[in-house]
Amino acid sequence: MKFHQHISVLPTYEVGKPLELVMRDYNIEPQNIIKLGSNENPLGTSPLAKEAILENACNAYIYPDDSYYELKESLAKKYDIESNQIIIGSGSDQIIEFCIHAICDKNTKVLMAKTTFAMYAIYAKHCNATILRTPDFFHNLDSMLQYYEAHKPSIIFLCTPNNPLGEALPKSQVIDFLKKIDRESLVVLDCAYMEYCAYKDSNYAISPKDIIDFPNVIYLGTFSKIYGLGGMRVGYGIANKTIIDTLNKIRPPFNITTLSLKAASASLFDEEFLQDSVKNNFSEMEKYKQFAKQYEIDILESYANFVTFILHNKLNSTKISNLLLRQGIVVRDLASYGLNAVRITIGISQQNDIVIQKLTDILQDL
Amino acid sequence: MKFHQHISVLPTYEVGKPLELVMRDYNIEPQNIIKLGSNENPLGTSPLAKEAILENACNAYIYPDDSYYELKESLAKKYDIESNQIIIGSGSDQIIEFCIHAICDKNTKVLMAKTTFAMYAIYAKHCNATILRTPDFFHNLDSMLQYYEAHKPSIIFLCTPNNPLGEALPKSQVIDFLKKIDRESLVVLDCAYMEYCAYKDSNYAISPKDIIDFPNVIYLGTFSKIYGLGGMRVGYGIANKTIIDTLNKIRPPFNITTLSLKAASASLFDEEFLQDSVKNNFSEMEKYKQFAKQYEIDILESYANFVTFILHNKLNSTKISNLLLRQGIVVRDLASYGLNAVRITIGISQQNDIVIQKLTDILQDL
Repeated sequence: MKFHQHISVLPTYEVGKPLELVMRDYNIEPQNIIKLGSNENPLGTSPLAKEAILENACNAYIYPDDSYYELKESLAKKYDIESNQIIIGSGSDQIIEFCIHAICDKNTKVLMAKTTFAMYAIYAKHCNATILRTPDFFHNLDSMLQYYEAHKPSIIFLCTPNNPLGEALPKSQVIDFLKKIDRESLVVLDCAYMEYCAYKDSNYAISPKDIIDFPNVIYLGTFSKIYGLGGMRVGYGIANKTIIDTLNKIRPPFNITTLSLKAASASLFDEEFLQDSVKNNFSEMEKYKQFAKQYEIDILESYANFVTFILHNKLNSTKISNLLLRQGIVVRDLASYGLNAVRITIGISQQNDIVIQKLTDILQDL
Repeated sequence: MKFHQHISVLPTYEVGKPLELVMRDYNIEPQNIIKLGSNENPLGTSPLAKEAILENACNAYIYPDDSYYELKESLAKKYDIESNQIIIGSGSDQIIEFCIHAICDKNTKVLMAKTTFAMYAIYAKHCNATILRTPDFFHNLDSMLQYYEAHKPSIIFLCTPNNPLGEALPKSQVIDFLKKIDRESLVVLDCAYMEYCAYKDSNYAISPKDIIDFPNVIYLGTFSKIYGLGGMRVGYGIANKTIIDTLNKIRPPFNITTLSLKAASASLFDEEFLQDSVKNNFSEMEKYKQFAKQYEIDILESYANFVTFILHNKLNSTKISNLLLRQGIVVRDLASYGLNAVRITIGISQQNDIVIQKLTDILQDL
C-alpha cells in the first residue's frame, strides 16, 4: 500500500499516564495513585451523570439517537442559541478534526500560539497543512493579527484559557480581534476550560452567544473538564448553521456512545457539582501558589484547572515527573512542548497536600 | 471559509431510526417500540459487560488507558495473534476511516461491491477518491479481480457477511483472491457479522489468523453486533504491525470511552451470551423464511443477524417500512441503496412474532 508520506512521519500525541500503566510499571495499587496529569475533574463524575449511566447500562446494545436531539436542546437552552447551531463531537478534539479536515490540505496554512493544545498541529499534519506559530510565550493577539495579515491562514486557533500554560484572553480583546479577521479564515475558539476562567474573572468570560453572529467563528466546549466526564468523550462546537451543516457532513454516525449522550445531558444542569468544582479548584490552587512562593519557583497565573511550574537551574521537569511517578503521582512533564516545565491538575485537598509534600521532599533532596 | 468543494456535496449516512425519534414522531412509549432497523443484538447487552459498566460508572471522569492494553491482550489471546497487530476504533467504522484517510486522495480509487456497507463510499468521498463498484448483485470475486486488474484501486473492500444483503464468501475463495492482489492495494475484510456466519457454516468462517501473514490485508471486527455493545462504539482492526503502526498515527487519543473499554473487555469472553445470541438468531430466522415462502416474497439467504426481503410488484419498501413504523416497528428500508427491499434484524421470539403478524396484516390489506 502507498500510505501518504506525510502520515507516515506523523508524531503521536503524548497522553497523561493512565492508572493502568502506573499500576503495571510501578506495582502501585489504584487507590494509592494520584492522577493529576490529564486535567480531569478531581471531584469525579457529576452525581446526576453517574445516575444516568447506571440507569442506561442496560441500553448499551442500542445505538444512540444520532440526532443528539435531547443534548442539543439542552445546550441551546443553556447558551440561548438554536440547536441547529450545535455539532456534537467525541470530545471537542473531534470538532477540531472536522474543522481541519473540511478545510485543510497541503496548500493551506493553520495559525496558532507557540505553546498551545497539541492536537491542533497533529490534526493539521494529518492534512499536510503548513503550521504557523506566533513567537510569543503566551497568546498575543497583536502578533496573531500580524501573522494573519502576512500569511492569510485558512484556520486560526485561539485557546482561552490556554492548555498547557493557563493564560486567558479578555473577552473585549477577543471580540476586537474577531472583527479584524475576514470570512476567508475560520477562527476556532477553544474554550475547553472556560467555566473555570469565567468564575475567576468575568472580564475573561466568553459565551457562545458572543461569537454566534460572526460568520467564520466556531466556539468549542467540552464535557471532559468541569462536567467530570473526561472518560465519556463528549464535546461540542457552536457556530452559525452554515458551518455546522458542513461539519456535520463529515461527522461519522454514532460518534458518541449511548451512555455518553445520557451522561452529558444529565450533567449539564448539575449546578451544585459545577459550583463545587470551580470553588475547589481556586481555593486549592492557592496551596500551589504558596509553595511556589516559598521555594521561589515560577508559577504561571492560571485561569484553568491546573498550574504550570516553569523550572530553572538544577530542576529538570522530566526528572521531577519521574520521581513523582515512582511514588504514584502522575503530573504532566511539558518537555515534549520544548519547556522545562511541569503541569499539575488541581486535585482535591488531600491530593494536593500529598503532592506538595512530595515536591518539597524532592527539592530538599536536591 | 473555503470548505473543500467535495465535502460540501457529501451525502449523509442514513441511520436506523432511534427510539427517541419514534417516540417523538409517533407518540409511542419506548416499551412498545420494536427496534429492528440497526442490527443490534436483540438479547441486549452481555451481562458481564453490563456489570463492568455498573462497576466503572464512578470512573467516567477518568480518560481511558489510551494503550487499550487489557482489551488488546484479550483480543490477541482470543485470536492467537500479537497485541501489536491490533488497532482499536470507535466502532470498526473508524478503522475504515483510518484506512481511507491514510491512503486516499483525489488521485486514488476504491473498489467495492455494488450493494454493500454505505460507509466505505462515504469515507472515500471525504477524501475525494474515485469509487468503483462491481456490477453484480452480490459480492463476486471474479468481477472484483477483473476490476482490480483493470483499475488498480488503492483499497478493495470485501464485506463478509455483507450488509445489507446478507451473503457471505467462502474462506477458500477469499484466500485465493487475496493471493492474487499485489501489495500495492490494501484489502479491507470487513467481518462485522462473522460470528453469525461462522456458526452457520464453518466453510465461511474467516479468522484474523487466516489473513495476518498477508502484508496488505486488514481484518475488521466489532463489538456492536454479537457482543451486544452497539451503543458503546468499539471495533478493531487486525493486520501486520506495519499497517497497524501507520493507522495508529492518525488514531485520535482516547477514541473510545472508559466504559466502552471495560464493557468490551468483559464481553469478549461471555461465551454463554455469544452462544445464546447465535442460536436465537438462526432459530428465529426460520420464522421469516416461512413467512416469505407462504407469501411468495423473495428472501435472501442470510449469514448475518438480519434478513432482507426483495419486494416486487405492488409492494413498496418505503410504504411498508412507514406502515410498520407507525405501529412502533422499526425496520430498514433499503430504498437509499437503490433497492425495493426491506432489511429486518432478527429479534427475540416475541418481537419476530409481532413483526410477522403486522407484515401479514399489511399484505392482506393491500
